[in-house]
Amino acid sequence: MPTTPLNIVILAAGKGTRMYSRLPKVLHEIGGISMLQRVIHTAQSLHPDNISVVIGHGKELVRQRIQADVHWVEQNQQLGTGHAVKMALPHLSSNGRTLILYGDVPLIDQQTLQDLLSIAGEDIGLLTDVLDNPTGYGRIIREQGNVIAIVEEKDATSTEKAIRETNTGIFVLPNHKLAQWLHALQNHNAQQEYYLTDVIALAQQDNIPVHPLQVRTSWLAAGVNNKQQLAQLERILQQQQATALLQAGVTLRDPARFDLRGQLTHGQDVTIDINVVLEGNIELGDNVTIGANCIIKNATIGAGTTIHPNSHLDNCIIGSNAQIGPFARLRPQAKIGDAVHIGNFVEVKNSTIGYGSKANHLTYLGDATIGEHSNIGAGTITCNYDGINKYRTTIGNHVRIGSGNMLIAPITIGDRATTGAGSTLSKNCPADKLTLARSRQTTLPEWQRPEKPAKE
Amino acid sequence: MPTTPLNIVILAAGKGTRMYSRLPKVLHEIGGISMLQRVIHTAQSLHPDNISVVIGHGKELVRQRIQADVHWVEQNQQLGTGHAVKMALPHLSSNGRTLILYGDVPLIDQQTLQDLLSIAGEDIGLLTDVLDNPTGYGRIIREQGNVIAIVEEKDATSTEKAIRETNTGIFVLPNHKLAQWLHALQNHNAQQEYYLTDVIALAQQDNIPVHPLQVRTSWLAAGVNNKQQLAQLERILQQQQATALLQAGVTLRDPARFDLRGQLTHGQDVTIDINVVLEGNIELGDNVTIGANCIIKNATIGAGTTIHPNSHLDNCIIGSNAQIGPFARLRPQAKIGDAVHIGNFVEVKNSTIGYGSKANHLTYLGDATIGEHSNIGAGTITCNYDGINKYRTTIGNHVRIGSGNMLIAPITIGDRATTGAGSTLSKNCPADKLTLARSRQTTLPEWQRPEKPAKE
Amino acid sequence: MPTTPLNIVILAAGKGTRMYSRLPKVLHEIGGISMLQRVIHTAQSLHPDNISVVIGHGKELVRQRIQADVHWVEQNQQLGTGHAVKMALPHLSSNGRTLILYGDVPLIDQQTLQDLLSIAGEDIGLLTDVLDNPTGYGRIIREQGNVIAIVEEKDATSTEKAIRETNTGIFVLPNHKLAQWLHALQNHNAQQEYYLTDVIALAQQDNIPVHPLQVRTSWLAAGVNNKQQLAQLERILQQQQATALLQAGVTLRDPARFDLRGQLTHGQDVTIDINVVLEGNIELGDNVTIGANCIIKNATIGAGTTIHPNSHLDNCIIGSNAQIGPFARLRPQAKIGDAVHIGNFVEVKNSTIGYGSKANHLTYLGDATIGEHSNIGAGTITCNYDGINKYRTTIGNHVRIGSGNMLIAPITIGDRATTGAGSTLSKNCPADKLTLARSRQTTLPEWQRPEKPAKE
Repeated sequence: MPTTPLNIVILAAGKGTRMYSRLPKVLHEIGGISMLQRVIHTAQSLHPDNISVVIGHGKELVRQRIQADVHWVEQNQQLGTGHAVKMALPHLSSNGRTLILYGDVPLIDQQTLQDLLSIAGEDIGLLTDVLDNPTGYGRIIREQGNVIAIVEEKDATSTEKAIRETNTGIFVLPNHKLAQWLHALQNHNAQQEYYLTDVIALAQQDNIPVHPLQVRTSWLAAGVNNKQQLAQLERILQQQQATALLQAGVTLRDPARFDLRGQLTHGQDVTIDINVVLEGNIELGDNVTIGANCIIKNATIGAGTTIHPNSHLDNCIIGSNAQIGPFARLRPQAKIGDAVHIGNFVEVKNSTIGYGSKANHLTYLGDATIGEHSNIGAGTITCNYDGINKYRTTIGNHVRIGSGNMLIAPITIGDRATTGAGSTLSKNCPADKLTLARSRQTTLPEWQRPEKPAKE
Repeated sequence: MPTTPLNIVILAAGKGTRMYSRLPKVLHEIGGISMLQRVIHTAQSLHPDNISVVIGHGKELVRQRIQADVHWVEQNQQLGTGHAVKMALPHLSSNGRTLILYGDVPLIDQQTLQDLLSIAGEDIGLLTDVLDNPTGYGRIIREQGNVIAIVEEKDATSTEKAIRETNTGIFVLPNHKLAQWLHALQNHNAQQEYYLTDVIALAQQDNIPVHPLQVRTSWLAAGVNNKQQLAQLERILQQQQATALLQAGVTLRDPARFDLRGQLTHGQDVTIDINVVLEGNIELGDNVTIGANCIIKNATIGAGTTIHPNSHLDNCIIGSNAQIGPFARLRPQAKIGDAVHIGNFVEVKNSTIGYGSKANHLTYLGDATIGEHSNIGAGTITCNYDGINKYRTTIGNHVRIGSGNMLIAPITIGDRATTGAGSTLSKNCPADKLTLARSRQTTLPEWQRPEKPAKE
Repeated sequence: MPTTPLNIVILAAGKGTRMYSRLPKVLHEIGGISMLQRVIHTAQSLHPDNISVVIGHGKELVRQRIQADVHWVEQNQQLGTGHAVKMALPHLSSNGRTLILYGDVPLIDQQTLQDLLSIAGEDIGLLTDVLDNPTGYGRIIREQGNVIAIVEEKDATSTEKAIRETNTGIFVLPNHKLAQWLHALQNHNAQQEYYLTDVIALAQQDNIPVHPLQVRTSWLAAGVNNKQQLAQLERILQQQQATALLQAGVTLRDPARFDLRGQLTHGQDVTIDINVVLEGNIELGDNVTIGANCIIKNATIGAGTTIHPNSHLDNCIIGSNAQIGPFARLRPQAKIGDAVHIGNFVEVKNSTIGYGSKANHLTYLGDATIGEHSNIGAGTITCNYDGINKYRTTIGNHVRIGSGNMLIAPITIGDRATTGAGSTLSKNCPADKLTLARSRQTTLPEWQRPEKPAKE
C-alpha cells in the first residue's frame, strides 16, 4: 500500500452530561491516564502526518492537561460529529486519508486501527460491531452485502432497529472526497445535527466503496458516557494488563485485585500479592516481592528486595535486597540503599540511606543522609524544620542512634558514634564516642498515685 | 384502588440451624444492617397500619437489637408458617389485607411489594419465581392457567417436582378470609407443620382468585439459610449500591471492591479508590477523594478534602480542603478544620484542630484543642491520662510544637509560642516565647561501644 | 476390592519454560503450598505403599524444599512421560497397581483418585475430561465405546482433533504389565518422546481393558504451565476454601476477597471482613472478628477477641477478649494475654503481656514481660538493643508507664510503679513509687522565632 498522508481527527468536544462531573469527559482517567491522552497515544503509534483534536466543553482545561503535539481545533457549538470533523478540515491534506477517533473511546488499539487502514485502502474503512443489544447505536444498512448507509437510533425504523450490526464511529475517509461530503451534510434528522455517519450514504452516491471491519471484541470500540461505563473499561484494561504480566511471568496472587495505572518494567520472578496498586513508572528488579495492599508510585526497586504489606511508596529509589515495611512510608526523594531495612511506622522523605543501614520502628527521617551499616533507634526523629527552613541531618557509617532521639538539624553524627536513648541532640556528635543528653532518674518517695474514687 | 387497611406480618422466629451461629438468623447483617431491620424498613416504606413481627428463637435478643415500632408476636413452638401467622391474628384488621414477609428474605424491595399489592386487589397476591433448579421450593400448581395450590418439595409428586414455577412465600391475603383459613389449616404433611401455603387451596375452595406476580429477579425474594447465601446477598446488595452510586456520578475505581454498610450522601466529583469500606452515615462533599483501603465510619468530610490510602476514620468531622493520611487514624470526636493536614501514623481523638494546622508524623492528639495555623512536630504526644482522669491540652494559633514533645495535660500553649524539640512540658507555655525542657548534651570520651565478640 | 500394593509415581521433572522463572515449576505455590507438596499430600491420603517423585530440572532445590517421605527418582533427560515413569520402575511392586500423578496438576483430590482406583480394578483406570476447546490435549480414541488409544495433539489427524474427550494424564496401571509396556514404548512421534499415553494402545493389544472416569470438574485435573494458569487455580482453590468455611458457619464478608494459605481452625461465630490474608496455621476461637485488610500468619486467637483492620500478625498467641489494632503489628513470640488492648502503630515482639494490660498508641515493645492491668503510655519504647545484645524489660502489675518513656533494658519496673512522661529510665523503678527523669522547663524571653522573609 502506498504511503499516502494520514491525518487523524479525534473528537473530544462533548460535555459528558451523564458523567455528572465538572471535569470534561475526555479527561476522566482509565488506568491512571486520561481517556483523551490514551487515544492520542494510540493515534501517535500510527505515525500520522498530524493529529487534530476537536475540543469544546472545558477546552481550556483539556488543552492544559493534555501533553501532545496536536492541532487543537475548537468546536464552539455542538452541531454533531460531521460538524466537528468539518472544523478540522484546515489541517487535513488534500490527498491521503483521515482516521476519525474519539476521546471517549479510550481502549481502541493500534492493531485494530492498522487493520482498518489496511482494509480501507483508498476507499472508506468503517469499524463495525455486532451487538446482542444494539439499542442506542447507529445501525449498518447493507444492500446485497454492501454497506450503503448508517442510520442513527433516533432516526431508525423498527426494521432497522432490529439490525444488530452497529457503527462504532471509527472511520477511515479519503481526503479527496471528505471536504465535499462534509459540506453536503444536512441536519434534517431527529437531533438536528450534522451526522458524520451520513458520509456513508454520500460515498454510496459517489461510488466509493465502504470496507467494513468488525472489531474483534466490543470493548475496543466501547465509548464512555457515564461512570458505570468508565468503571467497566477500567476493569477491562486492568484485566488486559494483568493477563499480559502473567504471560510475561509475573506472579499475581489475584489478577482481579491488581491495579496498574502507568507502566511497569519488571525482571524475572517478581511476585505481587493481592490488592496492590502501582502508579506512574515502576521498575521492579528480579525476585522483587510486593506484599498485599501496597501502593507504589514512581519507584525503582532493586533485585531481591521485599516490600512488605501495607507499605506506601511515592517517588523513591530502593536498592537490592532491601526489606521495606510493613507499614513503611517512603516519600519523594527517598533513596534507600542495598540491604537497608525500613520497618514499621517509619517515614522517609528526601533522605539517602546507605548500604545495610536500618530504621526499623516508629521513625521519621526527613532531609537526612545516612551512611552504611548504621542503626537508627526506634522513635527517632530528624527535626528538620524550624517552621520556615528545612535543615539536613548527616549520619555517618556504623553509627548507632539510640531510641527516641531528637536530632535537631543541621547536625552531623560522626562515623561509629553512638547516641544515648532519649537524647535530644542539637550539636554535632563526634565520631567513635557516646553522646547523650539525659536527665537524672529520681524516685519520689512521697508521691501518691491518683486513684479511682471508691464507688458509693 | 380503595385505601383499605394494610397489615404486615414478618416471620422471624426461625432458628437458622445452618447458620451455625448463636445469633438468631434474622439478626445477621447485610450491608451493615440486620436482615430483619432491613425487612422492617421496607415494610415501613409501604405505610401499613401496623407491622407484626413473629419471633421465637432468640426472641429477647431480637427485641433488644431491633429498633422499630412493631407488634412483637411470640411463636414459642415452631409449628409452621401458617401457625406463625395465626399468632399475629390479634393484630390484623377485620377488613383490608395482610402482607406476609420474612425476616430472612432481606432484599425484597418496595417496588415489588407495591406491584404485588396492586395486582392482588381484594383477592390474593402471590409473589412467584421461575427457577432453573427449583429443588427445595414450593411449586406453583396451575389449572387452566390459574393458580390452585402450592405443594411443598417434601410433599410433591415427581410430576410436581418438575415444575419450575415456585413460591417465594410472599403473599397478600384478604383479612376477611384469613382467620378462617388459618384455623382450617391441617398439618397432615411430611413435616407435620401448618403450612401458610395451604391457604391457596382453601382460597380456591372459596373462589377467591390468586393473582401471581413473578419477581423481576430472583435475589429480591431470595432467603438466607446459611452463610453462603448471606455472602451472596451481601455481594448483590453491594453491587446494587455501587451501580446506583456510579449512575449518580461517583467514580468507583472498582465497583466490585467497594463496601457501603449504611448511607452515603455525596457531592459532585467524588472519587473512591479500591477496597474502601464505608459504614454508618457518611457525607462526602464535592471533590472528595478517598484513597485505597480506607475504612470510614460515621464521618462528614468537606469539599476538596483528600483521605489518603490506608486511613481509618471513626465518628469524625473533617472540613474542606484537608489532607488526611496515609495511615491516619481519626477516632470519635475528632473535629478537623479546613485545610488541616493529618499525616502518617497520627491518631486524633476527641480533639478540635483549627484552620490550616498540621500534625504530619507519628503523633497522638487526645483531648486537645488546637488553634489555627499551628504545627505539631513529629512524635508529639498529648499526655491526657493520669491513669484515672483525662485532661485537656489547649494549643493556640500559630504555635510551633517541637518534635517529640510530651504535653502533660492540663496544659495551655499560648498563641505564637514555640516549644523546643524533645521537651516534656508540664506547665503552661506563654505566648510568643520559646519554651523548652532539655538536658545538656555531653560526650563521654572514655566510653567503649559493646562489640561483637571475635569469631573464633 | 482386594488390597493389592499401591505405588504412586509423581512426575515433577519438567522445567516449566513458560513460567519464566528460575524456580522449578512444581515449587510454585498455590494456597501458600508448593504444587508438588500438595500433590504429595493428596497422594499420601491414599495410603500407598510408596511414592516416587521423578525430578529433573532444579532437582536439588526440589529435594531441599519438599518435606516428604518419598523416593526421589532422577530423570536427567526429558525424554517423555513414558521415560519418566520408567525411571521409577525400581520402586514399583511386581504386583498391585501404580497411580500416575503430576507435580503440576495440583488440585487433584483424594475422592477423584479413590474413584479412579475403584473403577480401575485390576485393569487400567484413565481419568478423562470433556473440553469445549480440547486443543493441546491428548484425545481419547474409542471404538465401539471402548477406549483403545490416546493421540497427542501434535500427532492427531484432523478427525481426531475434533474429539472433545481428552486425557488428563492421570492413570492407574497394573504393575504386572507396566514394566513390559514401558520398555515397549517407541518415540516415533512428532516430539520424539516416549509417551506414557501409548500404554493404552499396548494394553489394547494385551486385552487389558481401559476404564475411563470423567473428572467431575475440569479444574481438578488442570495443569499449570504458566502464571496465568497458576493464578486461575489459585483463585479456584481460594473459592473452594471460602465455600467450605461459609458452609461451616464462618462469616466472610466477601468470599472473593479472602485468602487462606494454610490451615484454619475456627470456633463458632467467627467473622472475617474483606481482603484478609491468613497464612500458615491459624486458630480462631468463638466470636473472633478479623477486620478488613488484616494479614495474619501462624496465630492463635482466643474467643471474643477482635483484630481491628489493617493489622499485621506473625507467629503470635493472643488470649480471649483482647482488642488488637487497627494498625497493630505483632511479631514472633508476641504473647498477648486475655483482655489486653494493643492499639494503633504499636509493635510487639518477643514479649508477654498480662491480663488487661494496654499499649494503645505509637509504642514498641520488644523483649518485654508485662504484668497484669498495666498501662503503657503512648510513644513508649523498650530500648532492648545495644547494637550487639538484646536485653529484657520487665514491668510488673498495675504499672503506669508515662508517655514517651525510653526504657533502657535490662530494667525492671515494680508493681504499681508509675513513671513520668518523657522519662528515659536506665535503672530499675521501685514498686508503688513515681519515678521520672525530667529536665526543668524554661522559657527564653529573648528568643525570636525565625520568620519568613517579607515578600518584596
